[in-house]
Amino acid sequence: MWEKQILLLPGPTQVPPKVMRAMAAQQINHRGPEAKEMLYEVTEGIKKVFQTTNDVFILTASGTGGMEAAVSNIICPGDKVLVASNGSFGERFVKICRAFGADVEVLEYQWGEPINPDDIAYHLEQDKKHQIKAVFFQHNETSTGVLNDVKAISEARGNHPALLVVDAISGLAAADLQVDNWGIDIAICGSQKAFMIPPGLAALSVSERAWELVERATASRFYFDLRLAKKFFEKGQTPFTPALSLLFGLKESLKIILEEGLENSFKRHEMYKNMVWAAAEALDLEMLAPREAASPAVSAIKVPPEIGADDIVNKLLNDFNVVIAEGQGKLNGKIIRIGHLGYVDGLDLLAGLSALEITLYRLGHDVTIGAGVKAAEEVLRRGG
Amino acid sequence: MWEKQILLLPGPTQVPPKVMRAMAAQQINHRGPEAKEMLYEVTEGIKKVFQTTNDVFILTASGTGGMEAAVSNIICPGDKVLVASNGSFGERFVKICRAFGADVEVLEYQWGEPINPDDIAYHLEQDKKHQIKAVFFQHNETSTGVLNDVKAISEARGNHPALLVVDAISGLAAADLQVDNWGIDIAICGSQKAFMIPPGLAALSVSERAWELVERATASRFYFDLRLAKKFFEKGQTPFTPALSLLFGLKESLKIILEEGLENSFKRHEMYKNMVWAAAEALDLEMLAPREAASPAVSAIKVPPEIGADDIVNKLLNDFNVVIAEGQGKLNGKIIRIGHLGYVDGLDLLAGLSALEITLYRLGHDVTIGAGVKAAEEVLRRGG
Repeated sequence: MWEKQILLLPGPTQVPPKVMRAMAAQQINHRGPEAKEMLYEVTEGIKKVFQTTNDVFILTASGTGGMEAAVSNIICPGDKVLVASNGSFGERFVKICRAFGADVEVLEYQWGEPINPDDIAYHLEQDKKHQIKAVFFQHNETSTGVLNDVKAISEARGNHPALLVVDAISGLAAADLQVDNWGIDIAICGSQKAFMIPPGLAALSVSERAWELVERATASRFYFDLRLAKKFFEKGQTPFTPALSLLFGLKESLKIILEEGLENSFKRHEMYKNMVWAAAEALDLEMLAPREAASPAVSAIKVPPEIGADDIVNKLLNDFNVVIAEGQGKLNGKIIRIGHLGYVDGLDLLAGLSALEITLYRLGHDVTIGAGVKAAEEVLRRGG
Repeated sequence: MWEKQILLLPGPTQVPPKVMRAMAAQQINHRGPEAKEMLYEVTEGIKKVFQTTNDVFILTASGTGGMEAAVSNIICPGDKVLVASNGSFGERFVKICRAFGADVEVLEYQWGEPINPDDIAYHLEQDKKHQIKAVFFQHNETSTGVLNDVKAISEARGNHPALLVVDAISGLAAADLQVDNWGIDIAICGSQKAFMIPPGLAALSVSERAWELVERATASRFYFDLRLAKKFFEKGQTPFTPALSLLFGLKESLKIILEEGLENSFKRHEMYKNMVWAAAEALDLEMLAPREAASPAVSAIKVPPEIGADDIVNKLLNDFNVVIAEGQGKLNGKIIRIGHLGYVDGLDLLAGLSALEITLYRLGHDVTIGAGVKAAEEVLRRGG
């Protein structure tokens, strides 16, 4: 099969050739001077993307390893935490918190709905004794294509001392996330999303308030122990051998991200969202998320009842080498997800939408060929 | 600085160009058919290197993540375990076991000594009630250049039901390790050693007896939960997005390893060991390990008292772009370590030994220029 594949997943995302070339460098001493310089440089770069002056630590793991680090470093078994869950990754936070012994209160939403900040405010107000140690939620819920309003949720915390722990793995650099201005205590990101490098790295920003809990936490942790990460970072090292080739790539991809500028990146992702929504409307396809909470990183489209989600995804791969994602967990078979984050451009997306139209047509769905593409192209012409 | 660097670390090791080119492929769907085929292929390859038919699971993490997985998946807090520790990585097992709530009995050796199988036999014989759940130790202790006798330790277990958990991260493919024949319940490996790919992957082989404990373990685990790994492996997937580019590389490096053949690989590493030992003897340098327990993967040389270990390592880097390692933990400043595993050849090592001779001379040590190189070349000429 040709290698000309259009990858439209909500991660892993396409890797720019410049980043690939950087990753093809020979290994170096991870405890030597070159690695030290690189570690400090990429850490500073991530801080800029997080919009923070908090400490940032890079872990060799998938994003979920970063989520586990956020949990196991602040929890003492028995601690009460609140997880606001509106999708598969919200559920993952619930599972991780429970695995590490937390007493989890779950604020559960229909998959496809955004978190309502008023509910957070209500729950924290009820907690007069301030027993809730932390509130966990997603910036962008990858499984549903919903962007949660982190700023409003942060404001809803009010004077309650609970830490805010935000999984920004799929949202970072695609949608605004102001770690310092919005008072986010721990934010988590992953390499294979808008950072445009292969999977295998996660990073966490940690506020001073969060550090107090990190020092006192008694949950089991070793590989992800942030106290070790901090101790070694002071020497310009990580406690354990890091995924060096991914760090080589990250160094390059951060240059690309910061050269584009965060504002431009947010606008670009916003345009992709508008392209998919315009195409879906023209094709009479229903979206899962409400428009006002639609994600700029990934769009979830409901599958017309007469067609199988599997058939769409497989036919896109087999006929066009276009890769999109199916639904996760309880949404499996009910939605398809088009990822449009990172190193993707408008024409990639247009090509993917064209393949989708043809595929729906071939599967017997009533589609006017070209209608979705025309609508998306109109958005692209306008530039937003 | 030129990129012509001779990397003689006990990991990360040099990456073959063929492997680098394979890693430079575009990302794919980690839940799609191409990834499934690749995951099954590399898993079968690792089984061959482990010499096992046991289940093997690949984790996105440094080797230490694999060590943590081996602990957290078999332990219930309060369980008694025995750790035989003869170096920094033995100590790491102690720390991880304690972090996950085990009651750890430590069988401690001088750093530089091998584990005595009779001591294991004695400790297990004393445990009449069979309370010890598992025995943890290193195949190759990277911090001291000592190869432990895994087969003899396995025999020393006798009829005691304790699991044998072997950290084979730096020893695998450099020295024989017969997981099935020697009854190893869990063996751990890492990507950045004789697998010749960058750091970021670990893998574990898990015996049927170990699975019984995995199912019952109550230690905190999520990211490294092998029950999830098994469930997803049946679908040809990993629970969380794996480090795809490293898997692309692993697929190529396994071909190289299996084409060379394990026996040839062991012999080649044995020759490297003999080269370093011959050079050290000719230069009147003292080795840390006893000859009969010397590692074929990494050699630890005692630093002559009038010279600083730091000075040797820094001067090798600055004058020759040759990278070797210092001592870890309590051996810091007392030894230097020359890694000779994976994609290294006799001439790389000869060049490194030449640079070492000149460096020792320049630092004022009494060295006959050429003496060590001559002795090492003699080993290379003989081929062993």
